Amino acid sequence: MPHPNDPKLKSFIPVDPASDFPIQNLPYGVFSTRDGLAPRVGVAIGDYVLDLWQLAQDCRIDVVEQGVFAAPSLNAFMALGPTVWTRTRARISELLRHDHPELRDNETLRKRTLVPMADVALHLPIAVSGYTDFYSSKEHATNVGVMFRGKDNALQPNWLHMPIGYNGRASTVVVSGTKVRRPRGQLKPPTAEVPSFGPCKRLDFELEMGVVIGQASAIGEMLTEKQAEEMIFGFVILNDWSARDIQQWEYVPLGPFQAKAFATSISPWIVTREALEPFRVQGPAQEPQPLEYLRQTRPNNYDMQLDVALRAGVMNEAANICRTNFKYMYWSSVQQLVHHASSGCAMNVGDLLGSGTISGPEEDQRGSLLEISWNGTEPVELPGGVKRTFLEDGDSLVMRGWCQGDGYRVGFGEVEGTITPAG
Amino acid sequence: MPHPNDPKLKSFIPVDPASDFPIQNLPYGVFSTRDGLAPRVGVAIGDYVLDLWQLAQDCRIDVVEQGVFAAPSLNAFMALGPTVWTRTRARISELLRHDHPELRDNETLRKRTLVPMADVALHLPIAVSGYTDFYSSKEHATNVGVMFRGKDNALQPNWLHMPIGYNGRASTVVVSGTKVRRPRGQLKPPTAEVPSFGPCKRLDFELEMGVVIGQASAIGEMLTEKQAEEMIFGFVILNDWSARDIQQWEYVPLGPFQAKAFATSISPWIVTREALEPFRVQGPAQEPQPLEYLRQTRPNNYDMQLDVALRAGVMNEAANICRTNFKYMYWSSVQQLVHHASSGCAMNVGDLLGSGTISGPEEDQRGSLLEISWNGTEPVELPGGVKRTFLEDGDSLVMRGWCQGDGYRVGFGEVEGTITPAG
Repeated sequence: MPHPNDPKLKSFIPVDPASDFPIQNLPYGVFSTRDGLAPRVGVAIGDYVLDLWQLAQDCRIDVVEQGVFAAPSLNAFMALGPTVWTRTRARISELLRHDHPELRDNETLRKRTLVPMADVALHLPIAVSGYTDFYSSKEHATNVGVMFRGKDNALQPNWLHMPIGYNGRASTVVVSGTKVRRPRGQLKPPTAEVPSFGPCKRLDFELEMGVVIGQASAIGEMLTEKQAEEMIFGFVILNDWSARDIQQWEYVPLGPFQAKAFATSISPWIVTREALEPFRVQGPAQEPQPLEYLRQTRPNNYDMQLDVALRAGVMNEAANICRTNFKYMYWSSVQQLVHHASSGCAMNVGDLLGSGTISGPEEDQRGSLLEISWNGTEPVELPGGVKRTFLEDGDSLVMRGWCQGDGYRVGFGEVEGTITPAG
Repeated sequence: MPHPNDPKLKSFIPVDPASDFPIQNLPYGVFSTRDGLAPRVGVAIGDYVLDLWQLAQDCRIDVVEQGVFAAPSLNAFMALGPTVWTRTRARISELLRHDHPELRDNETLRKRTLVPMADVALHLPIAVSGYTDFYSSKEHATNVGVMFRGKDNALQPNWLHMPIGYNGRASTVVVSGTKVRRPRGQLKPPTAEVPSFGPCKRLDFELEMGVVIGQASAIGEMLTEKQAEEMIFGFVILNDWSARDIQQWEYVPLGPFQAKAFATSISPWIVTREALEPFRVQGPAQEPQPLEYLRQTRPNNYDMQLDVALRAGVMNEAANICRTNFKYMYWSSVQQLVHHASSGCAMNVGDLLGSGTISGPEEDQRGSLLEISWNGTEPVELPGGVKRTFLEDGDSLVMRGWCQGDGYRVGFGEVEGTITPAG
């Protein structure tokens, strides 16, 4: 049987070469339709969603535990572990192959299991157990450091020694398409004597990838590189919405709190670690060499193109404001996870790890408006004469990501969010 | 019917005046026995646990949703809301009253529902949705500030304007009695040129109260003082174990991460907000006056005595190292919750909010070894000539808390943790 990542594989379902969802991808999501059935697990293929619950009902997929696909999140399926993930993906690939008749030639089954994507609502794909946000792009950390501390002290002394991160708020992780209400908070601009409470005036996005943890680890235990890798179920695109003015006033000494607590948006499809395997690349050289527990024996970065588009107010179409690549990240997701568990911190199925803002070495590769507008001093000019330093009410932000194969791409779809007034 | 808080109430179960669990308390917990039944919900009364699941089976308690007491956490019961909390507590109080025959005179039912506390194992009482830790004792923040920044800059500029807090790690909240493995992490003492990885050398406790949130709030919405108060189900004692050396190196600029991620211990019994009502007191004057959203129309502090005892290594008995009171807290739990939701951050049933280390104005009222030993410079002397600056392997730390009534006390029992080697 050919490997599900084989670039030559074709599905009997027509898939445009520009589609994010060829047979080499098979990302998992949670969807519902107007048929009144509860949200359930599906896989994206071209312009369709394959209903795994219906397939399992028909005994076409062998999963140890029945019911994992009838759930409103991937958590129960993820808990079954990497062997089941691999076997299930291989079986789905087989069922969708152009040269495999089982589903292709069974019209009744096709009608029951293949739902046009236009007809589904997509839900948050996981029950988020914990949300952790890292800060692992050297370019991003340097940009922010230069802005606030000057060129000579751009990176904090600890930055090159470990993946710096903090615990975020899991309760406000939302799926793409969810409107984001402008947060309120305490603001104290440098010119003000005392703080006031009101709507955030410096609302920003942060382009990140999210790692979805599919296996738990025990309290008190550390992880090896290999163990950490095998706990990673897949990736999503993540927008770590940020209120810069709230953050500025609150974050010393315990870090970001309400500035990041109001919303974090993720893309609805989880692209599996396995599907990204062909796009694995070496990350930037790490100098100084990391401490032993953080050393990597293999490349753990991915060549993944990312872009951000903004539809500001009156514009009809979103305009690109950033094109970068996940491969620039200094600390890999595996290193982040190893560090996260290094104190003995237990990890859970459904934990979500934000990579940190992904900026690249070039000016047009900056993954936040803070950097793009250089802390509000250089407004970005958009088509039609629209200018922005930070996000305004009604603005819509769209992030996309994909790995380019030969004649196909393994993509994430998009994560979109529109800002509504604080009210 | 007398109010369950009536100081004159007596139970037919004998309760020592020094017991934490008179009929005026009735704290909720999750317990199991050697009978092989799954962990379930109970209430502490004297030296007994009242089995609510058995009572509900026998139709003695009317709860809307069956099964909430058969659960291994209080979350389902808490989700039913404050009206049900009040009604259920009143009914339990009635069933335990010395002048109410229903349970008192039914030997069969008594045998089935009253379990000697010595025969039960106590479990984590809630499924922790999110864990947030505040920093709301002015004395503690001042002590730490003087230590690290000197007397003139002790409090950060934002401290008097809002309850400073950060998101902690929910996955490692454990119940009293759980052993705590010494964490490992990156350490870089001021004398070292580069960091190294190894066992924490400055392991500390922090005496805190934990607020258990029993009702959810919606994303995008703020809370009033009244709404926030009604979401509070109860309180536990909380030990926010802290690795000072890991914290020192990692915390700039995003706050504590692995230094606090390895364990947080809580007491097994949740004392309800209602049971604490008679002990409500005015907190310290807040100057400057808080911004409007944080103003309080009523006293939200509690007169609750707290003490910490340490059994270090060879000692036979634990010796007291701190006696303080929850009433000293500058920011109240209600203000913390209002601030937490102020950006539109959704709160969930099962959220746990640590108060922050509770120190008082006197030297013997300091709630952490960092303060007691003044950053390791003044070792605490214990009976038998034992000295400690920070915790050593084998040390056991016990926290207790109670509100003193007239002839009875509403207490929490204890939260205990013993340090095991990093291995």
